[in-house]
Amino acid sequence: MRIRDLIVTPIAFSDPPLLNADGVHEPLALRTIVQLIVEGGVVGLGEGSGGTEVAGRVEQVRSAVVGLSVFDLNGIEAAVNAALGGDAGPLSRRDRRVVYSMLDVAAHDAQGKLTGLPVAELLGGRVRDRVPYSAYLFYKWAGHPRSAAIDDVEPDVWGEALDPVGIVAQARALIDRYGFGSIKLKGGVFPPDEEIAAIRALAEAFPGLPLRIDPNGAWTHDTAVRVARELDGVLEYLEDPVLGIDGMAAVAREVSQPLATNMCVVTFEQLAEAFAQDAVQIVLSDHHYWGGLRHTRELAAICGHWGVGVSMHSNSHLGISLAAMTHVAAATPELAYACDTHYPWNRAEDVVMPGAVEIVGGAVAVPTAPGLGVVLDEAALERQHRVYLDSGRTARDDTGYMRSFEPTYSPTLPRY
Amino acid sequence: MRIRDLIVTPIAFSDPPLLNADGVHEPLALRTIVQLIVEGGVVGLGEGSGGTEVAGRVEQVRSAVVGLSVFDLNGIEAAVNAALGGDAGPLSRRDRRVVYSMLDVAAHDAQGKLTGLPVAELLGGRVRDRVPYSAYLFYKWAGHPRSAAIDDVEPDVWGEALDPVGIVAQARALIDRYGFGSIKLKGGVFPPDEEIAAIRALAEAFPGLPLRIDPNGAWTHDTAVRVARELDGVLEYLEDPVLGIDGMAAVAREVSQPLATNMCVVTFEQLAEAFAQDAVQIVLSDHHYWGGLRHTRELAAICGHWGVGVSMHSNSHLGISLAAMTHVAAATPELAYACDTHYPWNRAEDVVMPGAVEIVGGAVAVPTAPGLGVVLDEAALERQHRVYLDSGRTARDDTGYMRSFEPTYSPTLPRY
Repeated sequence: MRIRDLIVTPIAFSDPPLLNADGVHEPLALRTIVQLIVEGGVVGLGEGSGGTEVAGRVEQVRSAVVGLSVFDLNGIEAAVNAALGGDAGPLSRRDRRVVYSMLDVAAHDAQGKLTGLPVAELLGGRVRDRVPYSAYLFYKWAGHPRSAAIDDVEPDVWGEALDPVGIVAQARALIDRYGFGSIKLKGGVFPPDEEIAAIRALAEAFPGLPLRIDPNGAWTHDTAVRVARELDGVLEYLEDPVLGIDGMAAVAREVSQPLATNMCVVTFEQLAEAFAQDAVQIVLSDHHYWGGLRHTRELAAICGHWGVGVSMHSNSHLGISLAAMTHVAAATPELAYACDTHYPWNRAEDVVMPGAVEIVGGAVAVPTAPGLGVVLDEAALERQHRVYLDSGRTARDDTGYMRSFEPTYSPTLPRY
Repeated sequence: MRIRDLIVTPIAFSDPPLLNADGVHEPLALRTIVQLIVEGGVVGLGEGSGGTEVAGRVEQVRSAVVGLSVFDLNGIEAAVNAALGGDAGPLSRRDRRVVYSMLDVAAHDAQGKLTGLPVAELLGGRVRDRVPYSAYLFYKWAGHPRSAAIDDVEPDVWGEALDPVGIVAQARALIDRYGFGSIKLKGGVFPPDEEIAAIRALAEAFPGLPLRIDPNGAWTHDTAVRVARELDGVLEYLEDPVLGIDGMAAVAREVSQPLATNMCVVTFEQLAEAFAQDAVQIVLSDHHYWGGLRHTRELAAICGHWGVGVSMHSNSHLGISLAAMTHVAAATPELAYACDTHYPWNRAEDVVMPGAVEIVGGAVAVPTAPGLGVVLDEAALERQHRVYLDSGRTARDDTGYMRSFEPTYSPTLPRY
């Protein structure tokens, strides 16, 4: 059961013009698909961050992992670390974990196929049969501009959402289609009073649904405290209102809202300091940079022991990642919130066969087939790889794209 | 792959008169052996704490785990917790984990047999092929007394060890036979100066070998600080010189020795406080009460992230536990010390076939057969179960046994 080969395929797929504190999503999102070929022909699938640099890093570890047992996660992790230069090399631990995470997912998929077990069983067994996800709302333009004239857009199916009315309409569309039972709004885009109004409009339109807002650190301390107090009792949690562990701790001392993060705590090395300061009450896990599925479970266990909550973060992603997120969430008792997912925004150009991971009633049923339970659509993979090659895109640049319409746009935070 | 039955067998086996801060080991040590019978006939083996009460608790969870998938560790753990009353019940989390731990080991053994994988592979792959153990020295009498006259002994093969000369001779015998490359002395028995002299004698007799002493909290703060300073540079670490997290933290502030514990930190719930106080620099893991193999790996991961060292504790045990300890140690990158083991003292009456887990050159080669890699000796199990039944022993009582010779013996700590 040794690894015989590793195939790395950078891809690109359509993404709507979703606004955030960095700028706006480009017309193409980037992602990396890995296939771990095991002796005997079993193929494990993994998906992770995109772009030329990351794909190159995965290529760089190929010869180091070929020949290892696909069950030897410790060995694969050590080989990846060493091939990328270790602590003395140019990459941070987090950057190395991003590479390892893709292989970890692919190894789990292969392990499941080899043993006949779903990945959730390999992770200790599912504690829930369905994993709830939240409706992930974004301020957005009506479509990507055809030119530097920002009003000259090619309208998409989602429509414009630049105010409370637009946000409520977007929520309605997502909830009608997917049955989401909780809502997250990506904020940090407009002045806080506008975003507070959007949250209040959501609370009125969807009474009883848990609500969150995530300005990605766009606010000053005073703004964060003011928003938290104004929305006290309205939000389930407030995500990354300010930047940094010290900043979050200072806000936490003044508000009663639980604070969540996927920004100031992104590596195991930051947990001790963050917990000592009581800077965050909820950590958003993400197997794509916490080191794969097993280490994500470890993160959740740690949070549980320290009395810190666990939720789950998402970036633009496709079905392999949704399956992996669903399996690890299913096997994580500490997870107590609906997970984030961008899947509704990106699923149209997925590279797996449809049907295995579907959001129904606001949740994904945990696949029971061996491994991740998704099947690669090889033609789709080839197609999206071609899109990547033809695009000439090499890295995500929300700020640069925004500047092509607003040349003076600055992503400097805090903004408000 | 569902659990069809759980067979619980309390056993007893010969134990030499090993002295400690509680008193002295009785002629029989107690242990519980579990067999998890899986559909299709695979049997997973587990071993844990002994005595009537613990065996009864394992019996109590039998009907709750029958019918569960042997891969569903989360489900088995939840079922054990619920069957024992949960947080509202009479048992502490640690007591419930003691029960779950046996099933966890047996489930891993069965999983390995079902998938063809050694347990170390199920735990993420071995990072070492051989797991080092330390020579575990004890002050001891020449043999168990035949009567209340403490000098009227039945000599055993180990001989007396009541002073530095005896301790060095015991170390020599263990090292000659097993090749141990490090030494631990169970202390807290004699006045500290005598134990310091024993450590100095060991340092002289075995230059270069790491040395530890464990008085099990028998010392006052001042004694602990004095001993630590006198043995500065001589000890690898000092284990549980005093009782409690606060006490250990106070000692740690005054000495340069790393302090280790298996007494003041025995549950995940104690980690935050212990780490916040920097009370211990090394945690001794023990899968028998940290919740089995997977949670022991979690403990080690946590220690690694907090910059705390990891070693491994042992109680009197037989071969199933030695195999389990070896597999989890093999799959734990953070483990940086030789593990403790009582195996040399107890192996003569083991219930597994000989040869699978042997200490050679101070280490046990990680078994490569599926599961734990040990084979139950059913006749031996029946024999040691009969010994248990015939003995009438129900619980370990080192203090009561000591009092049968020294009626005024008090186990109250600190003693010195």
